[in-house]
Amino acid sequence: MKKFTILICLLALFTVAYGEDGSRLWLQPLPYGQTNSTSIISGEKSPTIGLAISELNNPAYQLGSRTILIGTTTDKNIRKVFSKSELSTLSPESYLIRTVQWNGKEAIAIAGGDDKGALYGSYHLLRLAVTNGLGSPVSVREVPAYKVRVLNHWDNLDGSVERGYAGYSLWKWEDLPNTLSPRYKEYARANASIGINGTVLNNVNADPLILTHEYLIKVKALADVFRPYGLKVYLSVNFSSPTAISGLPTSDPLDEGVQRWWKDKAKEIYALIPDFGGFLVKANSEGLPGPQDFGRTHADGANMLADALQPYNGIVMWRAFVYNPGNEERAKQAYLEFTPFDGKFRSNVIIQIKNGPIDFQPREPFSPLFGAMKQTPIMPEFQITQEYLGFSNHLAYLAPMFKECLDSDTYAQGEGSTVAKVTDGSLYGNKISAIAGVANIGEDTNWCGHDFAQANWYAFGRLAWNHQLTSEVIADEWLKMTFTNDPEFLSPITKMMLDSREAVVNYMMPLGLNHIFAFDHHYGPEPWCDVPGARPDWMPTYYHRADSTGLGFDRTTSGSNGVSQYNQPLADLYNNIDTCPEEYLLWFHHTAWNHQMKSGNIMWDELCRHYDKGVLQVREFQKIWDRSEHFVDTDRFHRVQSKLRIQARDAVWWRDACLLYFQTFSKQPIPYDLERPVHDLDDLKKIKLNMGHNNKAKK
Amino acid sequence: MKKFTILICLLALFTVAYGEDGSRLWLQPLPYGQTNSTSIISGEKSPTIGLAISELNNPAYQLGSRTILIGTTTDKNIRKVFSKSELSTLSPESYLIRTVQWNGKEAIAIAGGDDKGALYGSYHLLRLAVTNGLGSPVSVREVPAYKVRVLNHWDNLDGSVERGYAGYSLWKWEDLPNTLSPRYKEYARANASIGINGTVLNNVNADPLILTHEYLIKVKALADVFRPYGLKVYLSVNFSSPTAISGLPTSDPLDEGVQRWWKDKAKEIYALIPDFGGFLVKANSEGLPGPQDFGRTHADGANMLADALQPYNGIVMWRAFVYNPGNEERAKQAYLEFTPFDGKFRSNVIIQIKNGPIDFQPREPFSPLFGAMKQTPIMPEFQITQEYLGFSNHLAYLAPMFKECLDSDTYAQGEGSTVAKVTDGSLYGNKISAIAGVANIGEDTNWCGHDFAQANWYAFGRLAWNHQLTSEVIADEWLKMTFTNDPEFLSPITKMMLDSREAVVNYMMPLGLNHIFAFDHHYGPEPWCDVPGARPDWMPTYYHRADSTGLGFDRTTSGSNGVSQYNQPLADLYNNIDTCPEEYLLWFHHTAWNHQMKSGNIMWDELCRHYDKGVLQVREFQKIWDRSEHFVDTDRFHRVQSKLRIQARDAVWWRDACLLYFQTFSKQPIPYDLERPVHDLDDLKKIKLNMGHNNKAKK
Repeated sequence: MKKFTILICLLALFTVAYGEDGSRLWLQPLPYGQTNSTSIISGEKSPTIGLAISELNNPAYQLGSRTILIGTTTDKNIRKVFSKSELSTLSPESYLIRTVQWNGKEAIAIAGGDDKGALYGSYHLLRLAVTNGLGSPVSVREVPAYKVRVLNHWDNLDGSVERGYAGYSLWKWEDLPNTLSPRYKEYARANASIGINGTVLNNVNADPLILTHEYLIKVKALADVFRPYGLKVYLSVNFSSPTAISGLPTSDPLDEGVQRWWKDKAKEIYALIPDFGGFLVKANSEGLPGPQDFGRTHADGANMLADALQPYNGIVMWRAFVYNPGNEERAKQAYLEFTPFDGKFRSNVIIQIKNGPIDFQPREPFSPLFGAMKQTPIMPEFQITQEYLGFSNHLAYLAPMFKECLDSDTYAQGEGSTVAKVTDGSLYGNKISAIAGVANIGEDTNWCGHDFAQANWYAFGRLAWNHQLTSEVIADEWLKMTFTNDPEFLSPITKMMLDSREAVVNYMMPLGLNHIFAFDHHYGPEPWCDVPGARPDWMPTYYHRADSTGLGFDRTTSGSNGVSQYNQPLADLYNNIDTCPEEYLLWFHHTAWNHQMKSGNIMWDELCRHYDKGVLQVREFQKIWDRSEHFVDTDRFHRVQSKLRIQARDAVWWRDACLLYFQTFSKQPIPYDLERPVHDLDDLKKIKLNMGHNNKAKK
Repeated sequence: MKKFTILICLLALFTVAYGEDGSRLWLQPLPYGQTNSTSIISGEKSPTIGLAISELNNPAYQLGSRTILIGTTTDKNIRKVFSKSELSTLSPESYLIRTVQWNGKEAIAIAGGDDKGALYGSYHLLRLAVTNGLGSPVSVREVPAYKVRVLNHWDNLDGSVERGYAGYSLWKWEDLPNTLSPRYKEYARANASIGINGTVLNNVNADPLILTHEYLIKVKALADVFRPYGLKVYLSVNFSSPTAISGLPTSDPLDEGVQRWWKDKAKEIYALIPDFGGFLVKANSEGLPGPQDFGRTHADGANMLADALQPYNGIVMWRAFVYNPGNEERAKQAYLEFTPFDGKFRSNVIIQIKNGPIDFQPREPFSPLFGAMKQTPIMPEFQITQEYLGFSNHLAYLAPMFKECLDSDTYAQGEGSTVAKVTDGSLYGNKISAIAGVANIGEDTNWCGHDFAQANWYAFGRLAWNHQLTSEVIADEWLKMTFTNDPEFLSPITKMMLDSREAVVNYMMPLGLNHIFAFDHHYGPEPWCDVPGARPDWMPTYYHRADSTGLGFDRTTSGSNGVSQYNQPLADLYNNIDTCPEEYLLWFHHTAWNHQMKSGNIMWDELCRHYDKGVLQVREFQKIWDRSEHFVDTDRFHRVQSKLRIQARDAVWWRDACLLYFQTFSKQPIPYDLERPVHDLDDLKKIKLNMGHNNKAKK
């Protein structure tokens, strides 16, 4: 690589104009013909380094007339200012940032383990400049916690997005490969800025068409746009693709023809996309095809795909989200189905496990599979899109929810075996490690529907990079970059964000309640839902089990014995109603209405008080936001204000629906000091919302 | 009249069964073949006395084994226990009740000035029994304040009820005269029990058909049912009836043919209904015909009708509710149109004046006409039906509103010239006096739609009888008779009732705001309403006059000079923004948003706090009601609970609509300590309710 020096030192004309329509996310828009007075020195010119330089040149960040050195461990300038031993231990994607002496003056040097590391380092420096300023010496060493940090888009080829609440899909399949939306690059840039290095473009409920050559050419066009930003492309694949696409008589993973088909397909993909990331598979789940259709196992299926991808270093992310209406209760099934195959998977297979045993509820205990799979790489799957937390109408900052799972102790190898350590490779020394987040991104101008939902995309990326960051630090970063760093704004708004997910839990499903959503759309409350002939495990009554004696699902040793899937001491802790954490009480115990809670209240009263608190919390959020009006541009202020109004109404709806319904079993009054319901149960039962959003194809 | 004694002394089998569907009102149902152990002694046997006896015999009242004497001043037993002088001063409808000695034992004697007085006295005694018990000696002398105490039904001949919210009309015109609904008698009984002695059967927007012989026969059938209860029938008449019914070329009141037509019609009516009460007339108002159509005056028109009725002692109630879109502002027009004719009306004409100068708003100052007409009998018209106070959905106890007007000092003859004294005959010594209430009654099982709306029917009757009763006393009476006399129930519920109308003012139209209702239906808020081509004086903007400088209608000497229609010192008091009572501030003054209020708040903040308070008051009513659950039967508890929920939602709707709309002018934040709006103004503007209720004919 020919080395040369770029020296840019132009007058900074700092007048960036942009409408606060939310499109810029937490970044400053790229400059339009303007540069700052900063000197950027690099001895390398890969496209990725070029992107880093243009970011550092963005006058909006006001880096001032300082000198910045940037490059990988082979850059001659970098090798002058860092020691050989420091550089030799720098792994790919990692970086160092340090205040150094350069030509007798102070400068800042960014050294990347590779050019992606250098790009990440640049974003880190810009973040520092915005959030803390660069007044004092910098000394940073960053190594990503997970190797694969991937978004899962549940985008369908028809442009719809399953559980999408921010408009239709970003991917314009009809226009690809010839027409490239400018948003593809903006999307890649946003992901790079928070360290996300992979994206699964299509829905796990996968259309086989994605693997046709016609679509692979489209995928390649996207991959080419994403590549300089270090963003690899992955695809969800349908297990029956050989049959569906090529008319093979079977898709049996042990069939040689099928195996050959997948190998040929891998070859075809990698010829187009040399750095293709791999496959994500939802198999034998909710009606999708899988190896069990042919009498084979999850291991048989995953390994066949892994063998096809192995020559190219591709990986298989095989989802553990499986359950069927049968004898075993739903929460236990993934564990029962997967633990027998622990250690039976190829080394480039990783099992993707949802954070909780059911399905992305406002609160679930962590999935016991995290504590059970010890000889197989496993990865957590979070849902960034708010399928179960108010869509893009409710403000719910999810970092605390992601961390609640990551910080949970599985006791897999004794105390301290957190989900984070089990999955990031540090506990078992796995070669591959990964984390996935189901994206909340669509073609809405502000990407995520709710301006504050951007914080969840941001938080997922930041935690995937470093799961030890606190929710508060991430919120603070995001707010400073997205709005302002005025402390009068930050302090109340940070608190609002930190409280927001718990508020949702309070007004939707406190004390371990779960899945009492309206059928199908999962937006409003419908604990009474009973669709004749429907799968019982899709009905709220399956989950809440309200009756005259109490409320909740008995997963103790006297019940479904779901507790036994947890390692000790958790199994005993959860099994005992007196030691079970109250936030999981109704998850593990069918609890008497008059059960004495730690507060001294009976369970029914405590339930009422949680719902009431949720309503009051949202009203408090409204006050906090309105008070911040003069810190925020008019457009975003009103958008968020309007969403908070919806949330306040919905919180009351939830409270009324759940309390009035459960009251038909508890037969007890709502404590008289609490605000009363404003709806009649019969009226609430009549509400049928058309909440399809963009889950359905465009007409 | 042959005199005889009825002695009834049977075993009281006290098990009255009735569903608490609200049908019994504040009364106990009449007994079904059961009697009590009370001895009722009467020397008279008019149908009215017979009704009194059967009421006193109702075992549900538990009068016990006492003796009751009942009769008029000519009854021989009555003449034994009361002094001659006492009886000689007893006017018709009046009564005495006293504990007396009878055959050496204690008894209670009821003496009526006539048999209606005796019936009213019976109801008084039963009320005493329920509300206080009859443990201590009784000594009562009651004389009605107004001679004519009349309900105005705005019932149309097609069964609809203008501004009716309790179902269709009670009067089944198609079935009359042959079929008599049992509810006619129940209706008459309820009115008698509170002293109401007249009813105008049909809408003031009168269909001429009511005066055809076909309809008069139907009216006669009702009058025959009502007569024993002392309830006289009146009719609203259309001024063009001679033309409309008989094809006369004119309805000019000075035309001899027209005069003869009315005289003949009166003769025809009185031949059928000898005690017919008279006519109610809405003329030259809101498109109705009247004498002005022929170049004549209100006096010409009223006097012609009065002459026709005079031979039969009938009266004409001529409404002063007149206004036209012209040069003069609406609130001033009735005064301007009627004061020139003061003293020009026949002695059997009485001018019926709405309590306020506009139209039954949640709060208005009293109409200045009450202080201006000194040589003409005038009568107040109240609206019992809640056209402007939430229909039959909102709990609003109206006694405080009625009394606010009755107790207002007009200063017509110096201090103390209250509206009550001006109208009850005591100030001017008028021979006729009257008071009207627009009924809230329909065919709903509970008569009034809202169980608590029954209290407004009750309160109107009680105040018409005695306007010195306090709102609290009336509420207490009504609650005891309708629900229970448990003090734990009475204390909070009475307070709720007493606060309720002010709560409506707070969340709808505080500080003198008025008429910012949604067009036509008058239920929800629509301060922004602008119907192209509509009469300006039917648009809310006509009334609130919001602009960048402030809010309210300038009726000072610098404005419309409406203040000048009030006697001193009121004219000056209202004219000065510093002395104008704040509840009328925006009625009389276009007030700056930053105007300093007595509380220290600026006007905008004070406005916000009133709306907020209204919401909080309704929520408090909900708590109070829910706490009373065990005092109330399940049916009524849930009906009222459900209505309060609607009211709580509506209060929030009103608050949000008004504050968000007025905020577009005030440009100031809602004080940050207050609960925030939960609606967006744009969404509220889209709401178009179908609130026709029963104002439209049955399909």
